[in-house]
Amino acid sequence: MIQISSTFDGGNIEILDANDPGDIRLRIQTDTASDHFQWFYFRLSGPVGERVKISIEGLDKSSYSNAWTDYRTVVSADGETWYRVDTTYTSGTLTSEFDLQSPRMMVAYFAPYSVDRKDACVSKALATGRFGYDVLGQSIDGRDLDCLHFGKAPDEAPVVWLIGRQHPGETMASWWMEGALEYLSDASNPVANAIRDELCVYIVPLMNPDGAFRGHLRTNTAGQDLNRAWAEPSIQSSPEVYHVRNRMDETGVRLFLDVHGDEALPYNFIAATEGIPSWNDVRQKEKDAFTDLLARINPDFQTKHGYPVSSPGKGNLAVANSQVGERFGALAMTLEMPFKDSAITPDPEHGWSPPRCKHLVHSCLQAIFLHLQKTA
Amino acid sequence: MIQISSTFDGGNIEILDANDPGDIRLRIQTDTASDHFQWFYFRLSGPVGERVKISIEGLDKSSYSNAWTDYRTVVSADGETWYRVDTTYTSGTLTSEFDLQSPRMMVAYFAPYSVDRKDACVSKALATGRFGYDVLGQSIDGRDLDCLHFGKAPDEAPVVWLIGRQHPGETMASWWMEGALEYLSDASNPVANAIRDELCVYIVPLMNPDGAFRGHLRTNTAGQDLNRAWAEPSIQSSPEVYHVRNRMDETGVRLFLDVHGDEALPYNFIAATEGIPSWNDVRQKEKDAFTDLLARINPDFQTKHGYPVSSPGKGNLAVANSQVGERFGALAMTLEMPFKDSAITPDPEHGWSPPRCKHLVHSCLQAIFLHLQKTA
Amino acid sequence: MIQISSTFDGGNIEILDANDPGDIRLRIQTDTASDHFQWFYFRLSGPVGERVKISIEGLDKSSYSNAWTDYRTVVSADGETWYRVDTTYTSGTLTSEFDLQSPRMMVAYFAPYSVDRKDACVSKALATGRFGYDVLGQSIDGRDLDCLHFGKAPDEAPVVWLIGRQHPGETMASWWMEGALEYLSDASNPVANAIRDELCVYIVPLMNPDGAFRGHLRTNTAGQDLNRAWAEPSIQSSPEVYHVRNRMDETGVRLFLDVHGDEALPYNFIAATEGIPSWNDVRQKEKDAFTDLLARINPDFQTKHGYPVSSPGKGNLAVANSQVGERFGALAMTLEMPFKDSAITPDPEHGWSPPRCKHLVHSCLQAIFLHLQKTA
Amino acid sequence: MIQISSTFDGGNIEILDANDPGDIRLRIQTDTASDHFQWFYFRLSGPVGERVKISIEGLDKSSYSNAWTDYRTVVSADGETWYRVDTTYTSGTLTSEFDLQSPRMMVAYFAPYSVDRKDACVSKALATGRFGYDVLGQSIDGRDLDCLHFGKAPDEAPVVWLIGRQHPGETMASWWMEGALEYLSDASNPVANAIRDELCVYIVPLMNPDGAFRGHLRTNTAGQDLNRAWAEPSIQSSPEVYHVRNRMDETGVRLFLDVHGDEALPYNFIAATEGIPSWNDVRQKEKDAFTDLLARINPDFQTKHGYPVSSPGKGNLAVANSQVGERFGALAMTLEMPFKDSAITPDPEHGWSPPRCKHLVHSCLQAIFLHLQKTA
Repeated sequence: MIQISSTFDGGNIEILDANDPGDIRLRIQTDTASDHFQWFYFRLSGPVGERVKISIEGLDKSSYSNAWTDYRTVVSADGETWYRVDTTYTSGTLTSEFDLQSPRMMVAYFAPYSVDRKDACVSKALATGRFGYDVLGQSIDGRDLDCLHFGKAPDEAPVVWLIGRQHPGETMASWWMEGALEYLSDASNPVANAIRDELCVYIVPLMNPDGAFRGHLRTNTAGQDLNRAWAEPSIQSSPEVYHVRNRMDETGVRLFLDVHGDEALPYNFIAATEGIPSWNDVRQKEKDAFTDLLARINPDFQTKHGYPVSSPGKGNLAVANSQVGERFGALAMTLEMPFKDSAITPDPEHGWSPPRCKHLVHSCLQAIFLHLQKTA
Repeated sequence: MIQISSTFDGGNIEILDANDPGDIRLRIQTDTASDHFQWFYFRLSGPVGERVKISIEGLDKSSYSNAWTDYRTVVSADGETWYRVDTTYTSGTLTSEFDLQSPRMMVAYFAPYSVDRKDACVSKALATGRFGYDVLGQSIDGRDLDCLHFGKAPDEAPVVWLIGRQHPGETMASWWMEGALEYLSDASNPVANAIRDELCVYIVPLMNPDGAFRGHLRTNTAGQDLNRAWAEPSIQSSPEVYHVRNRMDETGVRLFLDVHGDEALPYNFIAATEGIPSWNDVRQKEKDAFTDLLARINPDFQTKHGYPVSSPGKGNLAVANSQVGERFGALAMTLEMPFKDSAITPDPEHGWSPPRCKHLVHSCLQAIFLHLQKTA
Repeated sequence: MIQISSTFDGGNIEILDANDPGDIRLRIQTDTASDHFQWFYFRLSGPVGERVKISIEGLDKSSYSNAWTDYRTVVSADGETWYRVDTTYTSGTLTSEFDLQSPRMMVAYFAPYSVDRKDACVSKALATGRFGYDVLGQSIDGRDLDCLHFGKAPDEAPVVWLIGRQHPGETMASWWMEGALEYLSDASNPVANAIRDELCVYIVPLMNPDGAFRGHLRTNTAGQDLNRAWAEPSIQSSPEVYHVRNRMDETGVRLFLDVHGDEALPYNFIAATEGIPSWNDVRQKEKDAFTDLLARINPDFQTKHGYPVSSPGKGNLAVANSQVGERFGALAMTLEMPFKDSAITPDPEHGWSPPRCKHLVHSCLQAIFLHLQKTA
Repeated sequence: MIQISSTFDGGNIEILDANDPGDIRLRIQTDTASDHFQWFYFRLSGPVGERVKISIEGLDKSSYSNAWTDYRTVVSADGETWYRVDTTYTSGTLTSEFDLQSPRMMVAYFAPYSVDRKDACVSKALATGRFGYDVLGQSIDGRDLDCLHFGKAPDEAPVVWLIGRQHPGETMASWWMEGALEYLSDASNPVANAIRDELCVYIVPLMNPDGAFRGHLRTNTAGQDLNRAWAEPSIQSSPEVYHVRNRMDETGVRLFLDVHGDEALPYNFIAATEGIPSWNDVRQKEKDAFTDLLARINPDFQTKHGYPVSSPGKGNLAVANSQVGERFGALAMTLEMPFKDSAITPDPEHGWSPPRCKHLVHSCLQAIFLHLQKTA
């Protein structure tokens, strides 16, 4: 007998029919107070060795219905190693097949990352004595908005803000953040130590803890896409942005990196803020210099593929990078990692994966250091 | 500035006044739909090196108001190592003082154990291939009731049932369960292998996942003390017991261990079912043999201190061990571990602690094996 | 091309012909100044996936030529996990076949244990602050004879001596010793803490460091079998025994365990000192009680198979256990672990193995504690 | 009582007088068949908490007698963490003082690295399946000269040779090599994977195993400084160089890095081959580009301090980098790491240390990749 469940930190699935292991039919639940859906994460129990065929239906209505082609589901037996399984997409249905290697398998859109793990990760980092810490405020459901501080005071050095997982289904941002905290925690790391001496870094590892816990794709508990709330954040419907932007107002921002995942494109890339009023050649050169540098030092990153560039004046100031870019005159960027794989450096077994996110953040921190050192 | 929060897996506190680090006043929230309260768990942020004085008030109304004397609060910087701090109890107020070793400290009644950690622990055990697994049903809030199976089929060997944390505030039961799964997972462990060959073991690591998540002391979401629901478990108000007892009806029970923590007594001890109708000399001898054996092989366990024995016929069949003892003719026992310390083997730095729970479960499994081997 | 080498800590092999991977012919070198030989340990390099067939010749002259039947060679790719490979023995030639899983494989008689690892293991144990330490003297080649002390002073409590690897080829004794130091190092282990409070334990983890380093089977650099030197140890030819026995003369001995491996018998067993003059019923009962206890608590140990018992008065006082038993009126025992497997609890993949040695020592320490507590 | 010993892998000390813990007098032994001496490494046992004062005498005759000023001795209790202790140098005597934190402390010139650890490290790397492996030949004492291969065949890609520890006392080279193998072993590391796809790398982690084992500073068993034997290596007196250079003749060399430690200068720096006949502007620019790049990406590396540059034509072709640079037209460089600390990024507690060596090698591999990618 097959049993399926998702009532846990980050889980999301609805069972249509799980009676036949060879024809399990499921559906994804929408975000609270929102029509968005694309993230799935559930546990599946059954006899070891059994082959299961899982169909997730209704995806033609999902938030990125065009993104399922060439996507492959990740599964894990032990919750540590996640690997890709045979997956096809036809007419709104994603079908994955695999053998049960353990009596209980975890199945997800991307390697999940629980709020509980984030808390443990932050505690471990703080215990190194290398970080400052502030609770900026609370989410709608009352969860802390953690903000770690690393390095100089904001009036002493260029100010960098790193935020992650405004969109809760983009768990790669949490793996990236775990990698960031590990990297900066290492007292023998010369780049981390140089950042500590020369920059002022603020880190918000989890912008949307409620959405993360609830297994949302894109919004917080109020159904608000946080990355559309930066123009006028509200203490009621987007307190997560409200508190962070207020704190930024106190510190200023020189460089901003907002960490995301992209459902469709099989590439790591950066989107900047070409559409904002203050965009100019200097900013363009700076952005190009940064992304070229990152592409040089990390072969998993590239600059060829990405989003179309906004036309001048068309920038949406409700989006974090545009708001921060315009408000603070910052080099403001959105980092996108793939749900699928890095097509220029493919890993057929794992696709894009937690350990690769960690290597990428190491390079991002190195690039930030080199970039600001050069241009400070 | 001091910040305090408890909106996370297992957290429980209410802030009365946290403005003065030297006089922080807090209160514990009651269990949902219940007057019970005693468990507390929160995070406290502030400047490293700051001395804090925390008073938890109103404890004269707590579930075990007589248990606070000689109790000392546990704190942790990294979430891994928990140590005791200076604590006094006077007139309903528990006052603890310590220096902040990290910008964020965790403070609790006993080393916490999250539902998320339980899930990770179960996955890791299952991935060894040494266990079977079943979801027996769901809790009121919809969480899975995990049941692991180890060893022979129930018709082939003596059946042992191990259940833990009916009372969610008794987190030592979860550390014990983690130790049990680690012990049985080890393919080079001769006792684990002998258990596998000669016994049939069922394990329910977390009987009350809703209460655990909600930071309850004693009840589930319906305000039901599960350990008073075994006579007539209800699918509505005590599905956790309902599903487990039903499964037991299928397997039978030869030996039952229900793992708890005791708020007052600074000892590890076992309570049996002397008050049930079927109690007799044979059962008494068996119980004495088991507890004597356990005391011999684990110096942290003892048989001198414990609960008063029920008078014949006074056993409460709503309690798990009595119900299981009577229903199945089993050797049914409640293991109690201290919230405080083991007074016969004190550890002033940590008191009773997670690694000691794990050593105790190793001995319990060894004793179960030796006992049933002998009496099979 | 196949390359074979053994010039490293514990290595021993001689190449006759390694030109054909399908017919590699080798010979074992005798111990320095001795005819003994049986231990082999070498590295073999070649193309991954290549099947090799290795014949070790001339074993009809080896120290235990009757022991090769049913023996299977251990190999390892990473030096961490050792597994058994197909092995046959005919007319003095041991032939093993396996595929190269790595471009360099390690091949041995039993999982090796270097002098360097012993040093690291002792340092780690000492750094816990739970042990005392003395260099009793030097081996012939000048290596330290480490002696760790755990627990009470010798005049305060029963004195236990644990020594290992008089015979350097019996590396299971080193794994046992590593397990002993780990067990006693654990500050949360109630049995370790009880031993600390109630016994006085001396541990010599490596009696024969020179032989171990030189890849000997049985002797030290002078060609002396240390376990035949206890009647009249000499500072010239058996300083290892000389220094240890002298220290024993200062402390006395209540219980002695000398840890060995047996080439022929596929069992864990204990040999006592029935042939010594002072042997009597009391001693016999004590020995039976101890071995019965150990067999009860560890299913890998048994009392049915073992060495024939010496006739009264026939005990060889040059052997450690007899000398110590007679000299100190101690319960003196030799623990033998198999090179092959434990036939009563077989593990076809690994045979007897390092992790199983560690479980056995945990049980031995528990049994020593229980035994001496009882009989003190 | 204080006991001192050095009869182990890499040990070197001679006791003059160790009777008074407050005045321990020692001397360093010269390399076999050589007058060189500077490396020391010994164990010191005594009562925990005892303060010891250790004088190493006769250092005015040591190989780098001018290098002792500002040097501080490293010690370790557990063999894992090495820290600096109070040290002064006057008139040929180096005096260090510290408290015994464990009953046995290790004391050394720099964190030691045993031949046994090198073997374990190579096995672990090879077991990942990412490397090729060859034994190039044997040292004078018969030890294998390991050569790992990573990436493309030599006719497919630029050929890089990395060799370490020609001078056995320069153990930082071994930590660097361990870091290199770990870095390249990581299948999720994008730079490692790019190196694998685009370069051909050969690694000889330990050029001088005999000297390393014997606790030498600078020479092999024949008293030969290997880094003066590259013009005419001899199978008799410098087989280590002979075999490596022969293999290089087969593969060619595009970039060569020879990893060393410098006794005097508190900096990480690179020495090139400005004095060789073929040196020219192109080579100069390439060297400058490489060292500038490395300095940019690793703040522990710098280009300001280093050795004086050889005059044109004065290059010594017996030295590895000059020989390789001239022979193969390679960018041939010697990397020097400090025995003391990195003065531009000081760590008063540890000085230059194993984890910092590992960060440096990560940067070196990144720089090699970027450099050759650019110039290929």
